Amino acid sequence: MKITVQKFGGSSVADAVRIQKVANRIIQTKKPGEGLVVVVSAMGDTTDELIDLAQQLNPAPPEREMDQLISTGEQISSALLAMTLEAGGAKAVSLTGNQVGIQTDDSHTKARIFKIDPGKMIEELEQDRIVVVAGFQGINLKKDVTTLGRGGSDTTAVALAAVLDAASCEIYTDVDGVYTADPRIVPGAFKIERICYDEMLELASLGTKVIQNRAVEFAKKFDVVLHVRSSFHDGPGTLVTEEVEDMSMEQVVIRGVSLNQEEAKLTITLVPDKPGIAARIFKSIAEANINVDMIIQNVSAQGFTDVSFTVPRPELAKTSSLLEKIAREIEAGEVSVEEKIAKVSIVGVGMKSHPGVAATMFETLAREKINIMMISTSEIKISCVVRAEDGERAVRALHTAFGLDREEEAG
Amino acid sequence: MKITVQKFGGSSVADAVRIQKVANRIIQTKKPGEGLVVVVSAMGDTTDELIDLAQQLNPAPPEREMDQLISTGEQISSALLAMTLEAGGAKAVSLTGNQVGIQTDDSHTKARIFKIDPGKMIEELEQDRIVVVAGFQGINLKKDVTTLGRGGSDTTAVALAAVLDAASCEIYTDVDGVYTADPRIVPGAFKIERICYDEMLELASLGTKVIQNRAVEFAKKFDVVLHVRSSFHDGPGTLVTEEVEDMSMEQVVIRGVSLNQEEAKLTITLVPDKPGIAARIFKSIAEANINVDMIIQNVSAQGFTDVSFTVPRPELAKTSSLLEKIAREIEAGEVSVEEKIAKVSIVGVGMKSHPGVAATMFETLAREKINIMMISTSEIKISCVVRAEDGERAVRALHTAFGLDREEEAG
Repeated sequence: MKITVQKFGGSSVADAVRIQKVANRIIQTKKPGEGLVVVVSAMGDTTDELIDLAQQLNPAPPEREMDQLISTGEQISSALLAMTLEAGGAKAVSLTGNQVGIQTDDSHTKARIFKIDPGKMIEELEQDRIVVVAGFQGINLKKDVTTLGRGGSDTTAVALAAVLDAASCEIYTDVDGVYTADPRIVPGAFKIERICYDEMLELASLGTKVIQNRAVEFAKKFDVVLHVRSSFHDGPGTLVTEEVEDMSMEQVVIRGVSLNQEEAKLTITLVPDKPGIAARIFKSIAEANINVDMIIQNVSAQGFTDVSFTVPRPELAKTSSLLEKIAREIEAGEVSVEEKIAKVSIVGVGMKSHPGVAATMFETLAREKINIMMISTSEIKISCVVRAEDGERAVRALHTAFGLDREEEAG
Repeated sequence: MKITVQKFGGSSVADAVRIQKVANRIIQTKKPGEGLVVVVSAMGDTTDELIDLAQQLNPAPPEREMDQLISTGEQISSALLAMTLEAGGAKAVSLTGNQVGIQTDDSHTKARIFKIDPGKMIEELEQDRIVVVAGFQGINLKKDVTTLGRGGSDTTAVALAAVLDAASCEIYTDVDGVYTADPRIVPGAFKIERICYDEMLELASLGTKVIQNRAVEFAKKFDVVLHVRSSFHDGPGTLVTEEVEDMSMEQVVIRGVSLNQEEAKLTITLVPDKPGIAARIFKSIAEANINVDMIIQNVSAQGFTDVSFTVPRPELAKTSSLLEKIAREIEAGEVSVEEKIAKVSIVGVGMKSHPGVAATMFETLAREKINIMMISTSEIKISCVVRAEDGERAVRALHTAFGLDREEEAG
């Protein structure tokens, strides 16, 4: 049986009117004899409202209870969608993570799937029922409900597509695909027809939040073709696939330019330059569960280095006070913070085989008189940290410099 | 291990403030070394809101999906209560009907429990955790979620008390016990200290809605002592127990007087008086799923009878049009309805052995010039239907006549 997995996010099922629209759309796409599995997130702000309620009652609620609580959001939306499909004449059944049999590890609020039993789903699909699965959730071996972390419904969809060997996994969002840059910033940005997993991973981690990174990793691992498309119209979106020959034949060097304005930079000066010092700093930060992004280390004075790094802005205060403490302990200099920075990145598997990409990037920024504060590079991406106010200008200049501008949006 | 089961209704956990209060109360009552199981209903109007939402999307939603949907209400309140208990320093864990292992039949929205596995609860109790159970729900053999019908959390509490062989099952409500009559109608009404299951059943079905009837039946069957008490203060409430010797020694003849103003009366006249006619009428009504309460049949003319009966008032229109149809089919006379009636009942196991109770009731109403429209009697109850406007006066008169008035409320 040919099986398709569709995933609809929280804004697509935010209220009765939208659930009705999604149901109509699903019924239109349902082909006789083919299996359709639909994964839904919780309605609109349901999850946040439940978290707020929990916080009022316990500022540090046990994670097992949090999962027990917030998993209800998807249970509600999946049941409502199933009954709406039935009202529209389709046959449908909603299943929770437990009912599907999505086995995860014990890491409440950020569990990882280790096994899915497709039996129940296949049984329902064979009776020509549309299977509506509550996203974002599973159960551990103790039968406790677990959740997969923010955006976990994407991961559910990809995992189900993998285990069901689905023909495709369609991720419906409020945008109509992945763009070469944010169209609100770059008027010439256009929708990318096809992008490979690694590029998508870099773009996602750089702030293009169309689909959760973990879901893309999963898709890459299990070779699931993702189709990112609009909930609102029928046009094709962006295919996320394995890197293929015709991609490089297109001679695309840079796939897109992204902007992340949600980080802040910290610097600790005059760190004694001896082995293990960097480890000492970043181990403490990791233990405080703070996610460090870019790290730069430069020799400052003889026997001393300056270490700079970026963290998500909400973590700045916490990181800063921790760093002050560490600075005293390791007898370093002072801690300075730069709250408003922008990280501009260019991404493309093509750059691996095209020398000079980095030079073009730096020259472009120099021509725009934009000062580069930090640089970091990987196989398929180069990121520069600049002043926050220069961010959007930098994106526009790079989009033009790498030949990405289009007169009008392509298909 | 001594185990207590406590049940808190939806109004007791309607918002964060009340959940906090309930948690404080539970923590105060938790004794070291003793097991405590708490059953909760959904917060306030949650269930009704979910039903409304479902109705908007499907006027006749599949019952399986309804159960999948509305069972989330109790999952939410139980998780919130468990985390609030943890915040207060107690150890607690919330369990859904599925996690407890409450096996029911397949009757979605009105399932009946057939088995409960106490293993998981006992395991948690032995680790000194307060077990917070989502009321109102179970699962069938297909692992689909089922619900137990309105007020089903009472049934959950009693069933858990039975299977855990609990020392007592405390039902917390917004009133502080069962009264001899509604104190808003009868100022001299007082709280009953102890009442037997059968009396409670009659009072409940007659409109004293403190606890669901099915829960009382369950309690009777499994010999679970119920303690109906206030969520708001510590005073003792009403014990619902097996009929015991000291109850009759108290020489109480009548336990209470109740008033039901939620029924309407229908009469079909000149029904041909031949065998099977009553069956014909009431079979049709039962097939339309209408709950008939009192039935009276009287000979009217030679070879004809008049049949009167009462139904819940919301069913009146439906019953009336059905009855018109039946009247034509069986060639009876006309159908008349009396929308505003009151049913006044006296209840007490004592009346079995005390002749003259009925006479006292009829005399009392006659003295008050209250006309009796219908009479029905059982072993432990006598009900009279009177005009709606006479209902409250009838209750007061009977309360006095049977010696139930007190100067002030007894403990």
